Amino acid sequence: MRLSTFFLPTLKETPTEAQIVSHRLMLRAGMIRQTSAGIYAWLPLGHRVLKKIEQIVREEQDAAGAQELLMPTIQSAELWKESGRYDDYGKEMLRITDRHDREMLFGPTNEEMITDIFRAFVKSYRQLPLNLYHIQWKFRDEIRPRFGVMRGREFLMKDAYSFDIDAASARRSYQKMFLAYLRTFARMGLKAIPMRADTGPIGGDLSHEFIILAETGESGVFCHKDWLTLDVLQNAPGFDEDLQPFFDTYTSIYAATDEKHEPGNCPVPESDLVSARGIEVGHIFNFGTKYSKPMNAVVAGPGGEPVPVEMGSYGIGVSRLMGAIIEASHDDNGIIWPDAVAPFNVGLVNLKVGDAETDRVCQELYYKLRANGMDVLYDDRDERPGVKFADMDLIGLPWQLVVGPRGLKNGVVELKRRSTGEKQELSVDSALEKLSA
Amino acid sequence: MRLSTFFLPTLKETPTEAQIVSHRLMLRAGMIRQTSAGIYAWLPLGHRVLKKIEQIVREEQDAAGAQELLMPTIQSAELWKESGRYDDYGKEMLRITDRHDREMLFGPTNEEMITDIFRAFVKSYRQLPLNLYHIQWKFRDEIRPRFGVMRGREFLMKDAYSFDIDAASARRSYQKMFLAYLRTFARMGLKAIPMRADTGPIGGDLSHEFIILAETGESGVFCHKDWLTLDVLQNAPGFDEDLQPFFDTYTSIYAATDEKHEPGNCPVPESDLVSARGIEVGHIFNFGTKYSKPMNAVVAGPGGEPVPVEMGSYGIGVSRLMGAIIEASHDDNGIIWPDAVAPFNVGLVNLKVGDAETDRVCQELYYKLRANGMDVLYDDRDERPGVKFADMDLIGLPWQLVVGPRGLKNGVVELKRRSTGEKQELSVDSALEKLSA
Repeated sequence: MRLSTFFLPTLKETPTEAQIVSHRLMLRAGMIRQTSAGIYAWLPLGHRVLKKIEQIVREEQDAAGAQELLMPTIQSAELWKESGRYDDYGKEMLRITDRHDREMLFGPTNEEMITDIFRAFVKSYRQLPLNLYHIQWKFRDEIRPRFGVMRGREFLMKDAYSFDIDAASARRSYQKMFLAYLRTFARMGLKAIPMRADTGPIGGDLSHEFIILAETGESGVFCHKDWLTLDVLQNAPGFDEDLQPFFDTYTSIYAATDEKHEPGNCPVPESDLVSARGIEVGHIFNFGTKYSKPMNAVVAGPGGEPVPVEMGSYGIGVSRLMGAIIEASHDDNGIIWPDAVAPFNVGLVNLKVGDAETDRVCQELYYKLRANGMDVLYDDRDERPGVKFADMDLIGLPWQLVVGPRGLKNGVVELKRRSTGEKQELSVDSALEKLSA
Repeated sequence: MRLSTFFLPTLKETPTEAQIVSHRLMLRAGMIRQTSAGIYAWLPLGHRVLKKIEQIVREEQDAAGAQELLMPTIQSAELWKESGRYDDYGKEMLRITDRHDREMLFGPTNEEMITDIFRAFVKSYRQLPLNLYHIQWKFRDEIRPRFGVMRGREFLMKDAYSFDIDAASARRSYQKMFLAYLRTFARMGLKAIPMRADTGPIGGDLSHEFIILAETGESGVFCHKDWLTLDVLQNAPGFDEDLQPFFDTYTSIYAATDEKHEPGNCPVPESDLVSARGIEVGHIFNFGTKYSKPMNAVVAGPGGEPVPVEMGSYGIGVSRLMGAIIEASHDDNGIIWPDAVAPFNVGLVNLKVGDAETDRVCQELYYKLRANGMDVLYDDRDERPGVKFADMDLIGLPWQLVVGPRGLKNGVVELKRRSTGEKQELSVDSALEKLSA
């Protein structure tokens, strides 16, 4: 993509309405625009990141055996009356009356609808286990939306729902999602820690929040220092293996939000305890027959007997994740995208547009990098180098490849790694080779 | 994907509520489920097709130089009051009041919002031309939703919006979309014909509906028989070439809806005239300054003078297309997916689950086909062959690869092409080779 034609409305000023760094940086980097309170349009740069996050989430759900479908945003109130949540939900539910005066709503979540789909089609334990997910826009009418996409009203969420014939099978479904979540966040370059969460009146140990560490995080967390060095992707078993040992290991290393952490009663010696800040980006939860019983989602068991299915739900805040990633990965100059979710892999900076040799080399690099499968943003604007460097740091692409007449006289271009600031001078061929490795 | 675990709730009975063939087949093939009047959940098979259609639309928009963003579903009524359409739109607009009693709505289209985004950031003719598109769910509160996804209330649409400094540039933007649309539908295996549409009070010749031919189409159309043999993909110029000659050629071959066709006044001799039926799947429209003037979307022209921008909008009914494709491509046994949008490329049918050699060969084919990049649906269910054949024909995958003990004794498997019914017996290796070509 050529920056001269790319719709990237970066801002020089820091928007005063933004209270947290991710919100400020997303506005300044031209990634989003607020269209109403807590509702955002995703401009091309933001949209690219959103799609990359979504795709990683999807790949891990698929790998775990969950099947993607897509439920609509607008739901009938009838289903929510069946489960008993219609009145409970309060003002956060966006209630709508259609032209025929039917009560509808913009879905804040989908337990009821997926249970309805399930009960319409699944009649036997032989069709289980089943895990269905979708990635769809939700709406929660927050009284005071804030913090940009971290707490918006219209937000993109992945929600999966598992159906099992008994508690043992449900535990296994839960463990698959537990693993998928750890893998998902690790692939995005995040340190995500599962923390025991309340299960409400149902009880049990199958409820975890996934919290990623970020200095500017919304809540305090405590964990054993082993969490900081664990390599999830290295240690992860395959989804078809017995996941109990992995689950046992990862749930036994101490981690707790400050609400749950009891300093006088912590099993970790102070020297091994890390105090940090974090952001919740996912929640997995087994809720047994909470919906299947009132909604009559019953299958025939092995003996023909009717069995209300065991269910769980598994959410990831996809749009929220974008804010969380920025909170976890930025500096004073802007965003530092982890490679896996960066909107482009490389920013190619032409220091002197109009200089024949500089233009020629940039053009060559632009084509060759793309031929090697890289996403390249080519800054071919007629702007001062200072403006270009500032914009590149702001939008935070992992690599910056800087080409100018002075370097070319010596046969070199400059390659900068955004995360470390490390720069090296290389020949054009070496730069190509390094970036395509 | 193994059919034994795939969530594919096919129906044996024809649903009585479905009036048209695509609706019947989508319900029978387990692709969709109605969740409220005119609102559907896309089950895994339907969702796969939706994603494939969406991706082809996206690729052609990108190739034409349009840039993807994503606007939210919920909009503020304020913008629509600015353009004057809030009161005009009538009951098809789903109007919503949020918890703070603000007037909101579920967007039926996005001219106002994109114009607002444009005017916030684009100040100079140097930033033009610009074409921004998104693929997002829309809502139109149809008084009588029917025909399944062909006329639903919540529907997926691609809408693009072009911004140009003058009419000549706007014409070029229009021609790019004209070409992109012809390419898009041709890639899906459809015969799409652009037909001059009303431009309303604005006038001019820059408004076309794209209608695909389908025997069961909703409206009558007349066209020159040359349309039936034209190969758009073969004849299409590149998007950066001068598109005027292509545009002139494709707009000069006669085509008209029956509303516009005047039998006594038709330039085509009767022997060259084809009478057919069609379905509208896209509409492109230049509307000049209709929104830019009232909404003050003005840029500085070359001499610094304020110029209201010339705009156009370009829509494709993505979810509607799925119904339209089925209307255009089915037989008495079920759907016949064009290769490019098929949910899987191959259905692999195991005629005798439990027979060691049959299982082994199926397993081998399943892995090798996928290793070759094919999407495979493997029918490993313990069902009678008749059930398996009927389901395969119903869901309409382009190829069926049938493996049974009898064939294997002779060293062959059977490959069937769904569209022609043609069957051939081949060795396992030849079948692999043929499918991977």
